[in-house]
Amino acid sequence: MARYQAYLIDLDGTMYRGNAAIPEAAAFINKLQTEGVPFRFVTNNSSRTRAKTVEKLAKHDINVDESTILTPSIIAADYIKEVSDQASVFMIGEAGVEEALQSRGLTITNDNPDFVVVGIDRYVTYQKIKDACLHIQSGATFVATNPDIRVPTEEGFVPGNGAYVDLIRQVTKTEPIVVGKPDRLMVDLALEQMDVLHDQAIMVGDNYDTDIMAGIQANIDTLHVETGVTSQDDLQHVAVQPTYSLKTLAEWDEV
Amino acid sequence: MARYQAYLIDLDGTMYRGNAAIPEAAAFINKLQTEGVPFRFVTNNSSRTRAKTVEKLAKHDINVDESTILTPSIIAADYIKEVSDQASVFMIGEAGVEEALQSRGLTITNDNPDFVVVGIDRYVTYQKIKDACLHIQSGATFVATNPDIRVPTEEGFVPGNGAYVDLIRQVTKTEPIVVGKPDRLMVDLALEQMDVLHDQAIMVGDNYDTDIMAGIQANIDTLHVETGVTSQDDLQHVAVQPTYSLKTLAEWDEV
Repeated sequence: MARYQAYLIDLDGTMYRGNAAIPEAAAFINKLQTEGVPFRFVTNNSSRTRAKTVEKLAKHDINVDESTILTPSIIAADYIKEVSDQASVFMIGEAGVEEALQSRGLTITNDNPDFVVVGIDRYVTYQKIKDACLHIQSGATFVATNPDIRVPTEEGFVPGNGAYVDLIRQVTKTEPIVVGKPDRLMVDLALEQMDVLHDQAIMVGDNYDTDIMAGIQANIDTLHVETGVTSQDDLQHVAVQPTYSLKTLAEWDEV
Repeated sequence: MARYQAYLIDLDGTMYRGNAAIPEAAAFINKLQTEGVPFRFVTNNSSRTRAKTVEKLAKHDINVDESTILTPSIIAADYIKEVSDQASVFMIGEAGVEEALQSRGLTITNDNPDFVVVGIDRYVTYQKIKDACLHIQSGATFVATNPDIRVPTEEGFVPGNGAYVDLIRQVTKTEPIVVGKPDRLMVDLALEQMDVLHDQAIMVGDNYDTDIMAGIQANIDTLHVETGVTSQDDLQHVAVQPTYSLKTLAEWDEV
Protein backbone atom coordinates (compact mmCIF):
# COMPACT_ATOMS: atom_id res chain seq x y z
CA MET A 1 0.00 0.00 0.00
CA ALA A 2 1.22 3.46 -0.87
CA ARG A 3 2.90 5.46 1.89
CA TYR A 4 1.00 8.67 0.92
CA GLN A 5 -2.68 8.94 0.03
CA ALA A 6 -2.12 11.90 -2.30
CA TYR A 7 0.66 13.67 -4.20
CA LEU A 8 1.02 17.36 -5.02
CA ILE A 9 3.51 17.73 -7.84
CA ASP A 10 5.31 20.71 -9.33
CA LEU A 11 5.70 20.92 -13.12
CA ASP A 12 8.78 22.81 -14.42
CA GLY A 13 11.96 21.28 -13.01
CA THR A 14 10.03 18.23 -11.76
CA MET A 15 7.98 16.85 -14.71
CA TYR A 16 10.04 18.55 -17.44
CA ARG A 17 12.71 21.21 -17.62
CA GLY A 18 11.66 23.96 -20.08
CA ASN A 19 11.37 22.02 -23.33
CA ALA A 20 13.64 19.20 -22.17
CA ALA A 21 12.32 15.92 -20.83
CA ILE A 22 12.87 14.54 -17.35
CA PRO A 23 12.66 10.87 -18.35
CA GLU A 24 11.74 9.39 -14.95
CA ALA A 25 8.70 11.70 -14.60
CA ALA A 26 6.43 9.62 -16.87
CA ALA A 27 7.16 6.41 -15.00
CA PHE A 28 6.47 8.16 -11.70
CA ILE A 29 3.04 9.46 -12.81
CA ASN A 30 2.24 6.17 -14.49
CA LYS A 31 2.84 4.35 -11.22
CA LEU A 32 0.51 6.73 -9.35
CA GLN A 33 -2.16 6.17 -11.99
CA THR A 34 -1.71 2.37 -11.93
CA GLU A 35 -1.90 2.27 -8.14
CA GLY A 36 -4.89 4.66 -8.11
CA VAL A 37 -3.15 7.24 -5.93
CA PRO A 38 -4.72 10.67 -6.52
CA PHE A 39 -2.49 13.63 -7.43
CA ARG A 40 -2.63 17.27 -8.46
CA PHE A 41 -0.11 19.34 -10.38
CA VAL A 42 0.49 22.57 -8.48
CA THR A 43 2.29 25.12 -10.67
CA ASN A 44 3.27 28.78 -10.36
CA ASN A 45 2.99 29.16 -14.14
CA SER A 46 0.22 31.70 -14.75
CA SER A 47 0.72 32.17 -18.49
CA ARG A 48 -0.07 28.70 -19.83
CA THR A 49 -3.67 27.52 -20.00
CA ARG A 50 -4.51 24.17 -18.49
CA ALA A 51 -5.30 22.80 -21.97
CA LYS A 52 -1.80 23.73 -23.15
CA THR A 53 -0.28 22.14 -20.06
CA VAL A 54 -2.17 18.90 -20.79
CA GLU A 55 -0.70 18.99 -24.33
CA LYS A 56 2.79 19.67 -23.01
CA LEU A 57 2.60 16.82 -20.50
CA ALA A 58 1.33 14.47 -23.23
CA LYS A 59 4.49 15.18 -25.25
CA HIS A 60 6.40 13.81 -22.27
CA ASP A 61 4.16 10.70 -22.15
CA ILE A 62 2.21 11.98 -19.16
CA ASN A 63 -1.49 11.66 -19.89
CA VAL A 64 -3.81 13.53 -17.54
CA ASP A 65 -6.90 15.71 -17.80
CA GLU A 66 -7.25 19.41 -16.96
CA SER A 67 -8.86 18.77 -13.59
CA THR A 68 -5.51 17.54 -12.25
CA ILE A 69 -3.88 20.95 -12.82
CA LEU A 70 -4.02 23.84 -10.35
CA THR A 71 -2.67 27.13 -11.71
CA PRO A 72 -2.42 30.42 -9.79
CA SER A 73 -4.50 32.06 -12.54
CA ILE A 74 -7.46 29.76 -11.88
CA ILE A 75 -7.08 30.17 -8.12
CA ALA A 76 -6.90 33.98 -8.44
CA ALA A 77 -10.06 33.98 -10.56
CA ASP A 78 -11.85 31.72 -8.05
CA TYR A 79 -10.79 34.00 -5.21
CA ILE A 80 -12.11 37.12 -6.97
CA LYS A 81 -15.36 35.36 -7.92
CA GLU A 82 -15.86 34.41 -4.27
CA VAL A 83 -15.28 37.98 -3.04
CA SER A 84 -17.54 39.51 -5.67
CA ASP A 85 -19.57 37.60 -8.24
CA GLN A 86 -19.79 40.61 -10.59
CA ALA A 87 -16.22 41.87 -10.20
CA SER A 88 -14.38 43.71 -12.96
CA VAL A 89 -10.67 43.07 -13.37
CA PHE A 90 -7.72 44.85 -14.96
CA MET A 91 -5.27 42.13 -15.94
CA ILE A 92 -1.60 41.94 -16.72
CA GLY A 93 -0.85 38.46 -18.01
CA GLU A 94 -1.01 36.05 -20.89
CA ALA A 95 -3.53 33.43 -22.07
CA GLY A 96 -3.56 31.56 -18.76
CA VAL A 97 -4.81 34.58 -16.81
CA GLU A 98 -7.24 35.70 -19.49
CA GLU A 99 -8.79 32.25 -19.87
CA ALA A 100 -9.08 31.86 -16.10
CA LEU A 101 -10.90 35.17 -15.64
CA GLN A 102 -13.21 34.51 -18.60
CA SER A 103 -13.98 30.97 -17.45
CA ARG A 104 -15.28 32.45 -14.19
CA GLY A 105 -17.40 35.04 -16.02
CA LEU A 106 -15.41 38.01 -14.74
CA THR A 107 -15.29 41.24 -16.74
CA ILE A 108 -11.88 42.32 -18.02
CA THR A 109 -11.61 46.10 -18.24
CA ASN A 110 -9.22 49.04 -18.04
CA ASP A 111 -11.99 51.30 -16.71
CA ASN A 112 -12.26 51.59 -12.94
CA PRO A 113 -11.74 47.89 -12.13
CA ASP A 114 -12.47 46.29 -8.74
CA PHE A 115 -9.33 44.12 -8.96
CA VAL A 116 -5.92 44.26 -10.58
CA VAL A 117 -4.48 40.80 -11.31
CA VAL A 118 -0.78 40.62 -12.18
CA GLY A 119 0.67 37.52 -13.84
CA ILE A 120 3.76 37.18 -16.00
CA ASP A 121 3.32 38.98 -19.31
CA ARG A 122 6.19 38.83 -21.76
CA TYR A 123 4.56 41.59 -23.79
CA VAL A 124 3.99 43.95 -20.88
CA THR A 125 4.52 47.66 -21.54
CA TYR A 126 5.23 50.68 -19.34
CA GLN A 127 1.68 51.87 -20.01
CA LYS A 128 0.12 48.66 -18.64
CA ILE A 129 2.23 48.77 -15.50
CA LYS A 130 1.33 52.43 -15.03
CA ASP A 131 -2.38 51.68 -15.47
CA ALA A 132 -2.13 48.90 -12.87
CA CYS A 133 -0.43 51.31 -10.44
CA LEU A 134 -3.11 53.97 -10.94
CA HIS A 135 -6.02 51.51 -10.56
CA ILE A 136 -4.54 50.20 -7.30
CA GLN A 137 -4.14 53.76 -6.02
CA SER A 138 -7.81 54.32 -6.91
CA GLY A 139 -8.78 51.42 -4.66
CA ALA A 140 -8.65 48.26 -6.81
CA THR A 141 -7.55 45.15 -4.88
CA PHE A 142 -4.06 44.02 -5.92
CA VAL A 143 -3.77 40.27 -6.61
CA ALA A 144 -0.55 38.62 -7.78
CA THR A 145 -0.58 35.13 -9.30
CA ASN A 146 2.88 34.24 -8.02
CA PRO A 147 5.91 35.85 -6.39
CA ASP A 148 8.82 34.43 -8.46
CA ILE A 149 11.35 37.25 -8.89
CA ARG A 150 13.72 35.50 -11.29
CA VAL A 151 13.29 32.52 -13.56
CA PRO A 152 16.28 30.39 -14.61
CA THR A 153 16.59 29.80 -18.38
CA GLU A 154 19.37 28.49 -20.59
CA GLU A 155 20.40 32.13 -21.26
CA GLY A 156 20.46 33.18 -17.59
CA PHE A 157 17.93 34.51 -15.12
CA VAL A 158 15.03 36.44 -16.67
CA PRO A 159 12.42 38.58 -14.89
CA GLY A 160 9.63 36.59 -13.27
CA ASN A 161 6.21 37.85 -12.31
CA GLY A 162 7.37 38.65 -8.78
CA ALA A 163 9.79 41.26 -10.14
CA TYR A 164 6.90 43.21 -11.68
CA VAL A 165 4.69 42.61 -8.66
CA ASP A 166 7.38 44.10 -6.46
CA LEU A 167 7.75 47.09 -8.79
CA ILE A 168 4.01 47.79 -8.51
CA ARG A 169 4.14 47.24 -4.74
CA GLN A 170 6.87 49.85 -4.40
CA VAL A 171 5.16 52.43 -6.63
CA THR A 172 1.73 52.01 -5.00
CA LYS A 173 2.97 51.24 -1.46
CA THR A 174 0.29 48.52 -1.44
CA GLU A 175 0.89 44.89 -0.48
CA PRO A 176 -0.54 42.34 -2.95
CA ILE A 177 -2.54 39.23 -2.17
CA VAL A 178 -0.17 36.54 -3.51
CA VAL A 179 -1.67 33.27 -4.72
CA GLY A 180 1.22 31.04 -5.82
CA LYS A 181 3.80 28.99 -3.95
CA PRO A 182 5.34 29.40 -1.35
CA ASP A 183 1.93 30.47 -0.08
CA ARG A 184 0.07 27.38 1.16
CA LEU A 185 -3.23 28.33 -0.53
CA MET A 186 -2.88 26.07 -3.58
CA VAL A 187 -1.74 23.13 -1.41
CA ASP A 188 -4.79 23.49 0.83
CA LEU A 189 -7.17 23.75 -2.12
CA ALA A 190 -5.65 20.71 -3.84
CA LEU A 191 -6.04 18.58 -0.71
CA GLU A 192 -9.60 19.81 -0.32
CA GLN A 193 -10.36 18.79 -3.91
CA MET A 194 -8.97 15.30 -3.27
CA ASP A 195 -10.57 15.06 0.19
CA VAL A 196 -7.24 14.08 1.76
CA LEU A 197 -5.85 15.12 5.15
CA HIS A 198 -2.61 17.08 5.38
CA ASP A 199 -0.73 14.27 7.14
CA GLN A 200 -1.57 11.84 4.32
CA ALA A 201 -0.10 13.99 1.51
CA ILE A 202 3.30 14.93 0.15
CA MET A 203 4.47 17.87 -1.96
CA VAL A 204 7.04 17.06 -4.67
CA GLY A 205 9.20 19.69 -6.33
CA ASP A 206 12.64 20.92 -7.37
CA ASN A 207 12.53 24.47 -5.98
CA TYR A 208 13.09 24.82 -2.25
CA ASP A 209 11.90 28.43 -2.05
CA THR A 210 8.56 27.77 -3.73
CA ASP A 211 7.60 24.05 -3.87
CA ILE A 212 9.16 22.80 -0.67
CA MET A 213 8.31 25.97 1.26
CA ALA A 214 4.66 25.70 0.21
CA GLY A 215 4.62 22.16 1.63
CA ILE A 216 6.35 23.28 4.82
CA GLN A 217 3.92 26.22 5.22
CA ALA A 218 0.98 23.84 4.76
CA ASN A 219 2.54 21.41 7.25
CA ILE A 220 2.72 18.44 4.88
CA ASP A 221 5.64 16.17 4.05
CA THR A 222 7.91 17.24 1.19
CA LEU A 223 10.08 15.52 -1.40
CA HIS A 224 12.84 17.55 -3.05
CA VAL A 225 14.28 16.35 -6.38
CA GLU A 226 17.50 17.69 -7.81
CA THR A 227 16.27 18.02 -11.41
CA GLY A 228 15.66 21.78 -11.41
CA VAL A 229 16.50 24.90 -9.41
CA THR A 230 17.67 23.76 -5.96
CA SER A 231 20.68 21.47 -5.55
CA GLN A 232 21.36 19.23 -2.58
CA ASP A 233 24.29 21.56 -1.80
CA ASP A 234 21.88 24.49 -1.61
CA LEU A 235 19.91 22.61 1.05
CA GLN A 236 22.87 22.86 3.44
CA HIS A 237 22.01 26.55 3.85
CA VAL A 238 18.30 26.25 4.69
CA ALA A 239 16.87 26.09 8.20
CA VAL A 240 14.03 23.62 7.61
CA GLN A 241 14.93 20.55 5.57
CA PRO A 242 12.53 18.79 3.18
CA THR A 243 11.30 15.44 4.48
CA TYR A 244 13.15 13.73 1.62
CA SER A 245 15.71 14.83 -0.94
CA LEU A 246 16.59 12.68 -3.97
CA LYS A 247 18.66 13.04 -7.12
CA THR A 248 15.68 12.08 -9.29
CA LEU A 249 12.17 10.67 -9.02
CA ALA A 250 13.56 7.29 -10.15
CA GLU A 251 14.89 6.81 -6.61
CA TRP A 252 11.44 7.13 -5.04
CA ASP A 253 9.95 3.75 -4.17
CA GLU A 254 7.24 4.68 -1.66
CA VAL A 255 4.33 4.56 -4.10
CA MET B 1 26.89 91.06 -2.27
CA ALA B 2 25.18 87.71 -2.71
CA ARG B 3 25.27 85.31 0.21
CA TYR B 4 26.14 82.32 -2.02
CA GLN B 5 28.67 82.30 -4.86
CA ALA B 6 26.76 79.61 -6.81
CA TYR B 7 23.33 78.00 -6.99
CA LEU B 8 22.44 74.41 -7.87
CA ILE B 9 18.78 74.28 -8.81
CA ASP B 10 16.32 71.45 -9.36
CA LEU B 11 13.84 71.69 -12.26
CA ASP B 12 10.49 69.86 -11.81
CA GLY B 13 8.73 71.10 -8.68
CA THR B 14 11.15 74.03 -8.39
CA MET B 15 11.22 75.84 -11.78
CA TYR B 16 7.91 74.39 -13.08
CA ARG B 17 5.50 71.68 -12.03
CA GLY B 18 4.88 69.29 -14.93
CA ASN B 19 3.34 71.60 -17.52
CA ALA B 20 2.24 74.19 -14.96
CA ALA B 21 4.22 77.35 -14.21
CA ILE B 22 5.79 78.26 -10.89
CA PRO B 23 5.54 82.04 -11.38
CA GLU B 24 8.28 83.14 -8.96
CA ALA B 25 10.88 80.93 -10.68
CA ALA B 26 11.55 83.32 -13.56
CA ALA B 27 12.15 86.27 -11.24
CA PHE B 28 14.52 84.16 -9.15
CA ILE B 29 16.65 83.11 -12.16
CA ASN B 30 16.51 86.62 -13.60
CA LYS B 31 17.95 88.02 -10.38
CA LEU B 32 20.83 85.51 -10.44
CA GLN B 33 21.54 86.47 -14.05
CA THR B 34 21.38 90.21 -13.30
CA GLU B 35 23.68 89.87 -10.30
CA GLY B 36 26.05 87.61 -12.25
CA VAL B 37 25.75 84.71 -9.81
CA PRO B 38 26.56 81.43 -11.57
CA PHE B 39 24.11 78.54 -11.40
CA ARG B 40 23.48 75.05 -12.75
CA PHE B 41 20.25 73.14 -13.13
CA VAL B 42 20.69 69.67 -11.63
CA THR B 43 17.88 67.34 -12.71
CA ASN B 44 17.10 63.64 -12.34
CA ASN B 45 15.17 63.74 -15.63
CA SER B 46 17.01 61.39 -18.00
CA SER B 47 14.47 61.36 -20.82
CA ARG B 48 14.50 64.98 -21.95
CA THR B 49 17.42 66.28 -23.99
CA ARG B 50 19.09 69.47 -22.81
CA ALA B 51 17.84 71.27 -25.95
CA LYS B 52 14.24 70.36 -25.04
CA THR B 53 14.79 71.52 -21.47
CA VAL B 54 16.07 74.89 -22.74
CA GLU B 55 12.85 75.17 -24.80
CA LYS B 56 10.70 74.21 -21.84
CA LEU B 57 12.36 76.75 -19.56
CA ALA B 58 11.97 79.45 -22.21
CA LYS B 59 8.20 78.86 -22.17
CA HIS B 60 8.37 79.81 -18.50
CA ASP B 61 10.42 82.96 -19.30
CA ILE B 62 13.64 81.40 -18.12
CA ASN B 63 16.30 81.92 -20.76
CA VAL B 64 19.47 79.88 -20.38
CA ASP B 65 21.76 77.86 -22.60
CA GLU B 66 22.39 74.11 -22.57
CA SER B 67 25.64 74.38 -20.65
CA THR B 68 23.70 75.33 -17.51
CA ILE B 69 21.90 71.96 -17.46
CA LEU B 70 23.31 68.80 -15.86
CA THR B 71 21.30 65.65 -16.61
CA PRO B 72 22.04 62.16 -15.32
CA SER B 73 22.15 60.94 -18.92
CA ILE B 74 25.03 63.26 -19.77
CA ILE B 75 26.84 62.39 -16.55
CA ALA B 76 26.35 58.65 -17.17
CA ALA B 77 27.76 59.02 -20.69
CA ASP B 78 30.74 61.02 -19.39
CA TYR B 79 31.40 58.38 -16.74
CA ILE B 80 31.36 55.54 -19.31
CA LYS B 81 33.58 57.51 -21.70
CA GLU B 82 36.10 58.02 -18.91
CA VAL B 83 36.18 54.32 -18.02
CA SER B 84 36.49 53.20 -21.63
CA ASP B 85 36.78 55.48 -24.64
CA GLN B 86 35.51 52.77 -27.04
CA ALA B 87 32.75 51.37 -24.85
CA SER B 88 29.61 49.80 -26.27
CA VAL B 89 26.34 50.37 -24.43
CA PHE B 90 22.93 48.68 -24.27
CA MET B 91 20.47 51.40 -23.34
CA ILE B 92 17.00 51.54 -21.87
CA GLY B 93 15.79 55.12 -22.08
CA GLU B 94 14.38 57.87 -24.25
CA ALA B 95 15.89 60.69 -26.31
CA GLY B 96 17.87 62.14 -23.38
CA VAL B 97 19.88 58.97 -22.88
CA GLU B 98 20.32 58.26 -26.58
CA GLU B 99 21.52 61.79 -27.35
CA ALA B 100 23.90 61.74 -24.39
CA LEU B 101 25.53 58.47 -25.45
CA GLN B 102 25.79 59.56 -29.10
CA SER B 103 27.21 62.97 -28.17
CA ARG B 104 30.08 61.14 -26.42
CA GLY B 105 30.70 58.88 -29.44
CA LEU B 106 29.66 55.72 -27.61
CA THR B 107 28.30 52.74 -29.57
CA ILE B 108 24.72 51.70 -28.81
CA THR B 109 24.22 47.96 -29.28
CA ASN B 110 22.27 44.92 -28.13
CA ASP B 111 25.21 42.64 -28.89
CA ASN B 112 27.57 41.89 -26.00
CA PRO B 113 27.74 45.47 -24.59
CA ASP B 114 30.31 46.67 -22.04
CA PHE B 115 27.69 48.73 -20.19
CA VAL B 116 23.95 48.67 -19.59
CA VAL B 117 22.48 52.13 -18.96
CA VAL B 118 18.96 52.28 -17.55
CA GLY B 119 16.93 55.50 -17.70
CA ILE B 120 13.17 55.99 -17.68
CA ASP B 121 11.59 54.61 -20.84
CA ARG B 122 7.85 54.96 -21.22
CA TYR B 123 7.96 52.51 -24.13
CA VAL B 124 9.98 49.85 -22.35
CA THR B 125 9.03 46.23 -23.05
CA TYR B 126 9.57 42.94 -21.21
CA GLN B 127 12.07 41.98 -23.90
CA LYS B 128 14.25 45.05 -23.28
CA ILE B 129 14.28 44.48 -19.54
CA LYS B 130 15.13 40.84 -20.12
CA ASP B 131 17.98 41.77 -22.48
CA ALA B 132 19.36 44.21 -19.88
CA CYS B 133 19.25 41.46 -17.23
CA LEU B 134 21.06 38.97 -19.47
CA HIS B 135 23.77 41.48 -20.50
CA ILE B 136 24.45 42.33 -16.86
CA GLN B 137 24.70 38.63 -16.02
CA SER B 138 27.21 38.31 -18.89
CA GLY B 139 29.39 40.96 -17.27
CA ALA B 140 28.19 44.35 -18.55
CA THR B 141 28.49 47.16 -15.98
CA PHE B 142 25.07 48.26 -14.71
CA VAL B 143 24.59 52.07 -14.66
CA ALA B 144 21.32 53.73 -13.59
CA THR B 145 20.62 57.37 -14.44
CA ASN B 146 18.54 57.96 -11.31
CA PRO B 147 16.90 56.06 -8.46
CA ASP B 148 13.38 57.62 -8.33
CA ILE B 149 10.96 54.75 -7.60
CA ARG B 150 7.70 56.71 -7.99
CA VAL B 151 6.88 59.96 -9.73
CA PRO B 152 3.93 62.10 -8.64
CA THR B 153 1.55 63.10 -11.46
CA GLU B 154 -1.96 64.55 -11.54
CA GLU B 155 -3.31 60.99 -11.94
CA GLY B 156 -1.32 59.52 -9.05
CA PHE B 157 2.12 58.00 -8.62
CA VAL B 158 3.53 56.38 -11.75
CA PRO B 159 6.61 54.14 -12.04
CA GLY B 160 9.90 56.02 -12.04
CA ASN B 161 13.21 54.79 -13.36
CA GLY B 162 14.23 53.52 -9.92
CA ALA B 163 11.36 51.01 -9.97
CA TYR B 164 12.80 49.37 -13.11
CA VAL B 165 16.36 49.68 -11.83
CA ASP B 166 15.34 47.84 -8.68
CA LEU B 167 13.59 45.14 -10.74
CA ILE B 168 16.81 44.54 -12.71
CA ARG B 169 18.87 44.63 -9.50
CA GLN B 170 16.70 41.89 -7.99
CA VAL B 171 16.75 39.68 -11.10
CA THR B 172 20.51 40.02 -11.66
CA LYS B 173 21.54 40.31 -7.98
CA THR B 174 23.86 43.11 -9.15
CA GLU B 175 24.05 46.57 -7.59
CA PRO B 176 23.93 49.45 -10.10
CA ILE B 177 26.13 52.53 -10.23
CA VAL B 178 23.51 55.26 -9.66
CA VAL B 179 24.20 58.72 -11.10
CA GLY B 180 21.26 60.95 -10.07
CA LYS B 181 20.30 62.67 -6.83
CA PRO B 182 20.47 61.90 -3.90
CA ASP B 183 23.95 60.77 -4.93
CA ARG B 184 26.31 63.76 -4.61
CA LEU B 185 28.04 63.14 -7.95
CA MET B 186 26.11 65.76 -9.97
CA VAL B 187 26.53 68.36 -7.21
CA ASP B 188 30.28 67.83 -7.14
CA LEU B 189 30.56 68.02 -10.94
CA ALA B 190 28.45 71.19 -11.12
CA LEU B 191 30.64 72.94 -8.52
CA GLU B 192 33.75 71.79 -10.36
CA GLN B 193 32.37 73.27 -13.62
CA MET B 194 31.74 76.61 -11.87
CA ASP B 195 35.02 76.49 -9.93
CA VAL B 196 33.20 77.16 -6.66
CA LEU B 197 33.96 75.65 -3.24
CA HIS B 198 31.34 73.56 -1.42
CA ASP B 199 30.90 76.08 1.40
CA GLN B 200 30.08 78.85 -1.09
CA ALA B 201 27.20 77.01 -2.79
CA ILE B 202 23.59 76.12 -2.09
CA MET B 203 21.30 73.40 -3.48
CA VAL B 204 17.68 74.45 -4.14
CA GLY B 205 14.85 71.98 -4.60
CA ASP B 206 11.39 70.73 -3.65
CA ASN B 207 12.13 67.06 -2.99
CA TYR B 208 13.76 66.24 0.32
CA ASP B 209 14.71 62.68 -0.63
CA THR B 210 16.55 63.66 -3.81
CA ASP B 211 17.40 67.40 -4.02
CA ILE B 212 17.97 68.22 -0.38
CA MET B 213 19.65 64.88 0.35
CA ALA B 214 22.07 65.39 -2.56
CA GLY B 215 23.04 68.73 -0.99
CA ILE B 216 23.38 67.16 2.45
CA GLN B 217 25.48 64.29 1.05
CA ALA B 218 27.74 66.82 -0.70
CA ASN B 219 27.97 68.86 2.49
CA ILE B 220 26.60 72.09 1.02
CA ASP B 221 23.81 74.33 2.28
CA THR B 222 20.29 73.54 1.11
CA LEU B 223 17.08 75.47 0.42
CA HIS B 224 13.81 73.56 0.40
CA VAL B 225 10.78 75.10 -1.35
CA GLU B 226 7.25 73.83 -0.85
CA THR B 227 6.23 73.97 -4.52
CA GLY B 228 6.58 70.28 -5.32
CA VAL B 229 6.90 66.91 -3.60
CA THR B 230 7.93 67.58 0.02
CA SER B 231 5.77 69.69 2.34
CA GLN B 232 7.00 71.54 5.41
CA ASP B 233 4.93 69.04 7.43
CA ASP B 234 6.91 66.19 5.86
CA LEU B 235 10.12 67.80 7.13
CA GLN B 236 9.03 67.17 10.72
CA HIS B 237 9.82 63.50 10.12
CA VAL B 238 13.35 63.81 8.75
CA ALA B 239 16.52 63.58 10.82
CA VAL B 240 18.63 66.22 9.04
CA GLN B 241 16.84 69.49 8.26
CA PRO B 242 17.55 71.60 5.17
CA THR B 243 19.43 74.82 5.93
CA TYR B 244 16.34 76.81 4.85
CA SER B 245 12.74 75.91 4.08
CA LEU B 246 10.38 78.37 2.36
CA LYS B 247 6.88 78.32 0.92
CA THR B 248 8.14 79.64 -2.43
CA LEU B 249 11.23 81.13 -4.05
CA ALA B 250 9.59 84.60 -3.76
CA GLU B 251 10.52 84.59 -0.07
CA TRP B 252 14.24 84.21 -0.78
CA ASP B 253 16.10 87.50 -0.49
CA GLU B 254 19.71 86.39 -0.09
CA VAL B 255 20.77 86.89 -3.69
